[in-house]
Amino acid sequence: MKARSYLTLIFILTILLLSSPSSHAKKKNNKHKPCKQLVLFFHDIIYNGHNKANATSTIVASPEGSNRTILAGEFHFGNVAVFDDPITVDNDLHSPPVGRAQGMYFYDTKNTYTAWLGFSFSLNSTEYQGSINFVGADPLMNRTRDISIVGGTGDFFMHRGVATVMTDAYEGEVYFRLRVDMKFYECW
Amino acid sequence: MKARSYLTLIFILTILLLSSPSSHAKKKNNKHKPCKQLVLFFHDIIYNGHNKANATSTIVASPEGSNRTILAGEFHFGNVAVFDDPITVDNDLHSPPVGRAQGMYFYDTKNTYTAWLGFSFSLNSTEYQGSINFVGADPLMNRTRDISIVGGTGDFFMHRGVATVMTDAYEGEVYFRLRVDMKFYECW
Amino acid sequence: MKARSYLTLIFILTILLLSSPSSHAKKKNNKHKPCKQLVLFFHDIIYNGHNKANATSTIVASPEGSNRTILAGEFHFGNVAVFDDPITVDNDLHSPPVGRAQGMYFYDTKNTYTAWLGFSFSLNSTEYQGSINFVGADPLMNRTRDISIVGGTGDFFMHRGVATVMTDAYEGEVYFRLRVDMKFYECW
Repeated sequence: MKARSYLTLIFILTILLLSSPSSHAKKKNNKHKPCKQLVLFFHDIIYNGHNKANATSTIVASPEGSNRTILAGEFHFGNVAVFDDPITVDNDLHSPPVGRAQGMYFYDTKNTYTAWLGFSFSLNSTEYQGSINFVGADPLMNRTRDISIVGGTGDFFMHRGVATVMTDAYEGEVYFRLRVDMKFYECW
Repeated sequence: MKARSYLTLIFILTILLLSSPSSHAKKKNNKHKPCKQLVLFFHDIIYNGHNKANATSTIVASPEGSNRTILAGEFHFGNVAVFDDPITVDNDLHSPPVGRAQGMYFYDTKNTYTAWLGFSFSLNSTEYQGSINFVGADPLMNRTRDISIVGGTGDFFMHRGVATVMTDAYEGEVYFRLRVDMKFYECW
Repeated sequence: MKARSYLTLIFILTILLLSSPSSHAKKKNNKHKPCKQLVLFFHDIIYNGHNKANATSTIVASPEGSNRTILAGEFHFGNVAVFDDPITVDNDLHSPPVGRAQGMYFYDTKNTYTAWLGFSFSLNSTEYQGSINFVGADPLMNRTRDISIVGGTGDFFMHRGVATVMTDAYEGEVYFRLRVDMKFYECW
């Protein structure tokens, strides 16, 4: 009986040892299930020389031969825009903003539409306080695109994850709306 | 005999507990205590057309209608600056630099002062060799702001953390000094 | 008495199990051996006003007094280039590309050649599908430079690592080729 209970004990301890990669504060998840998930929208109105009051973004750099009020030819290759876009919880531009999406995007392919994104969500709502930092390639012509969530602060302290971006609306070259489906896999 | 088996059990459990932060090389910490901490300062003197010799940063992009020697109106919205700033261990610009803060900042709100930062510390001192990479939103008007440390090399190999940035001095629109309080939570 | 000691044991084991946030999908490695490794090359041909058809990158921003077809003086300090460069598995520009390196680099020292990099590999080959996101300082005059891999998607989902960059060829100021030796230490 003693022997058997010892065997049972050793068996349980072995299981524990094998399965116990330890005591982090960081919460992680099996099989890549997110530990936190959040869907938000942001709205970009680019300055075109005639919409100063409404514009939320502006071209700040462009290749030789182009200007900063008209997106350049060659699929806007080389256009850099800085933005300060309202974030909403639904797809309505006029919903009360829960924060600002701020950063830059630039067009970076000569024969199709792609962009590179470096920006942050600064959230300031009853539900969330803090920032989320994004970096990644955005091949605009794909229905969904994945970019990296490389860090966060406040409620998103040290978080990492993947954000699936979707163009939810696109009106000429003045307005677009992005749906950002954030899945965090490191939550702390 | 009972007593002895209990002692054995407690011994095994103790070993388990002590050895169970498992097998990563990465050192992490419960309750979000940093595994490494470091405070440094960096100093930015922006080029204004008259200070070429001393300037450590320069405006490289700006919205239509503005130039690259005067920060634009509307809270500098759309101004992009590239910088190469000395890093010091105290708040004295003339202390021996321990490295360079290099990267960019750009102003990204139309109705207040905020910036987005993408830069690196390249450290080259007796104490530290290596680089630290930062990304994040900097709402300048807040006394302290948190940005993400997204990676590092050398002595900061694979590190992640949060840096609390504080404007330590601000002289007109030519000089500012930032205090950067780095807390690393993933140290390897 | 037996029963009670068993209960105690089960209680302790339960505590242990609950406190062992454990069993990640993430694969990590002792002693900093990479869990994945990959060497790729990319090729940059900068637009100089005369090579529109072949150019893969273009100057989009520069300090006051310079233009966007000639890299500026002072070690190109303040020049920002956006690129869309083919990636190959060997050092031959004409090998079939396995993806595109897209993003930006900018020169950020006044008295030597250094750059700051923010870019992505978008891979689309039989071997790899997905993106890898890079951020970091590139002191060009060093034979090898380490930058951070801050995230990835697809086959590189949530990956982190360090990339060692090497200038494999440099022809005047028009063409350069970088060898990128990626070592991933977080593989998921």
